[in-house]
Amino acid sequence: MLKRDILVGVDIGGTKTAVLVSSAPPAVLGRIEFPTRPEKGAEPAVRLIKKAVRRMLAQRRLDGAAIRTIGVSCGGPLDRIRGVIQAPPNLSTWVDIPIKAILEDEFKVECHVENDANAGAVAEHRFGAGQGCRNMVFITMGTGFGAGIITDGHLYHGTNDMAGEIGHVRLTRSGPIGYYKAGSVEGWVSGGGMAQVATRMVTAAQKREEATILTEVVRKGLPITARDVALAAQKGDALAARLIHSTGKRLGGVLAILVDILNPERIVIGGVAMRLGDTLLDPARAVIQREALATPAAACEVVPAALGESIGDVAALCVAMGL
Amino acid sequence: MLKRDILVGVDIGGTKTAVLVSSAPPAVLGRIEFPTRPEKGAEPAVRLIKKAVRRMLAQRRLDGAAIRTIGVSCGGPLDRIRGVIQAPPNLSTWVDIPIKAILEDEFKVECHVENDANAGAVAEHRFGAGQGCRNMVFITMGTGFGAGIITDGHLYHGTNDMAGEIGHVRLTRSGPIGYYKAGSVEGWVSGGGMAQVATRMVTAAQKREEATILTEVVRKGLPITARDVALAAQKGDALAARLIHSTGKRLGGVLAILVDILNPERIVIGGVAMRLGDTLLDPARAVIQREALATPAAACEVVPAALGESIGDVAALCVAMGL
Repeated sequence: MLKRDILVGVDIGGTKTAVLVSSAPPAVLGRIEFPTRPEKGAEPAVRLIKKAVRRMLAQRRLDGAAIRTIGVSCGGPLDRIRGVIQAPPNLSTWVDIPIKAILEDEFKVECHVENDANAGAVAEHRFGAGQGCRNMVFITMGTGFGAGIITDGHLYHGTNDMAGEIGHVRLTRSGPIGYYKAGSVEGWVSGGGMAQVATRMVTAAQKREEATILTEVVRKGLPITARDVALAAQKGDALAARLIHSTGKRLGGVLAILVDILNPERIVIGGVAMRLGDTLLDPARAVIQREALATPAAACEVVPAALGESIGDVAALCVAMGL
Repeated sequence: MLKRDILVGVDIGGTKTAVLVSSAPPAVLGRIEFPTRPEKGAEPAVRLIKKAVRRMLAQRRLDGAAIRTIGVSCGGPLDRIRGVIQAPPNLSTWVDIPIKAILEDEFKVECHVENDANAGAVAEHRFGAGQGCRNMVFITMGTGFGAGIITDGHLYHGTNDMAGEIGHVRLTRSGPIGYYKAGSVEGWVSGGGMAQVATRMVTAAQKREEATILTEVVRKGLPITARDVALAAQKGDALAARLIHSTGKRLGGVLAILVDILNPERIVIGGVAMRLGDTLLDPARAVIQREALATPAAACEVVPAALGESIGDVAALCVAMGL
């Protein structure tokens, strides 16, 4: 009797796609990564996904019959039930790609699809910084800003699988743009938002002749990234430190809203927060203590995600496990 | 064999307390209401609660042995597990009253305790405007402003039973005070907040010699209530209409946050919203369509609570049913 004990995880991002095989997540038996190249549309990447699965199975003298389930983690919007990717901002050419049907047809096994914030929430809840929590919020703080919500031990999807879109909430009437909205949480607090604010701050610093390492980036004609800011701060750059501090305070304001509404035991923050650590999180924690109700504020830990660079891999495998 | 088929519900409010017996909620077999008189402390009211239960049982030739469970619905903060009322704002003399232990000792049956926003959420979900919903938010818009959250068909309590404290979220840096915070949701949008804003608007109207019915209330030295505003608007008072419209817009801003974070199928609003209806809710709905994400906004109905004046009764019986 054949044992169908291989889980396949597929993590599709705007920059790279990773394909994994595992028989006991979070441990991985094999992994193949390639550039997603969204500018070429979905077709070449989908072909590479299929090829990567076949190759890793063949290396283990297995074929498609060894697969138990496939899980795809991808940016939203997507139709989770039908398993269709609906042109997420970082994969804008992937218009209505029926990835579930494509992979089920190819490998004759069930394929689950989940947005990456939700999949990341389950990954951190099961294997990372959220272990043992009953109520948890996972924050993705990358190019965008989103949340995956665990209530009473289970992932909460909401009515249209759109729960957790905190990045869209307005913080100020005007301000940096994120999620198509000026002054939104994503505009102020995401990695992309930090880059916008950094550019403004550097321009202002140039006018008053304040020296900052980030001027170099602007002079080269490059957009400032959250990574540039982190590196500059590590080198003692005062402007970069101020930007991280003010972003942390804005982050705290957002998290205080989540603390008052959801009263979570832990908020786990991925992306930029893993790199910046307490320089970002300490100001955020201070604002939560001031802005949120005392009891839920005292009950809520704010910690960086623990899975580091492997969070996308583990997230995709959690999707394969049916979450 | 004795049938323990009587549920006892106790709804303790700052103004009145209602005690109910029922064998099939939401239908009620008997009901006794009396003023809570919080200025006298908890003891007299607790005695009246016990007496009301005994009297209603005796009228049906029953005794305590007929009771299946008791449910107490009360303003927070409270310790739900231990069943202790912890000096809620509207019952500030009820300091650490172990209502569960008191009633269990008296009647020798299990007593459940729940805060009124959560109990109201379950009442509307099971018997009112939230029937058939999987994901619902119930808003109490009275003296305060709170929410009870239903996720995937179940009441969500949060880590310290503090989930849903949206009234504490800050909308503006300064503004009317609610929940100990200037510019909070409760400051702007509750019945109490409306009264504060009304007083300011009337003072400003007097200066520019604009006529408004509400001037009469102020002249009598009385605080303006949300009820005054509703009545004035019904009589065609322009200032009252403006206030309801602007409160509706603020309400919409708050609900848009809940739509983006929780993606509920329905938001059910009790208290002031039941009286004001669409004059309050239409501006709120318009803001949700503009401020929240399109898909969750389109999926979410905003409706007044359906249980009307009986919501507290039904809520207490839902607590007796174990929610």
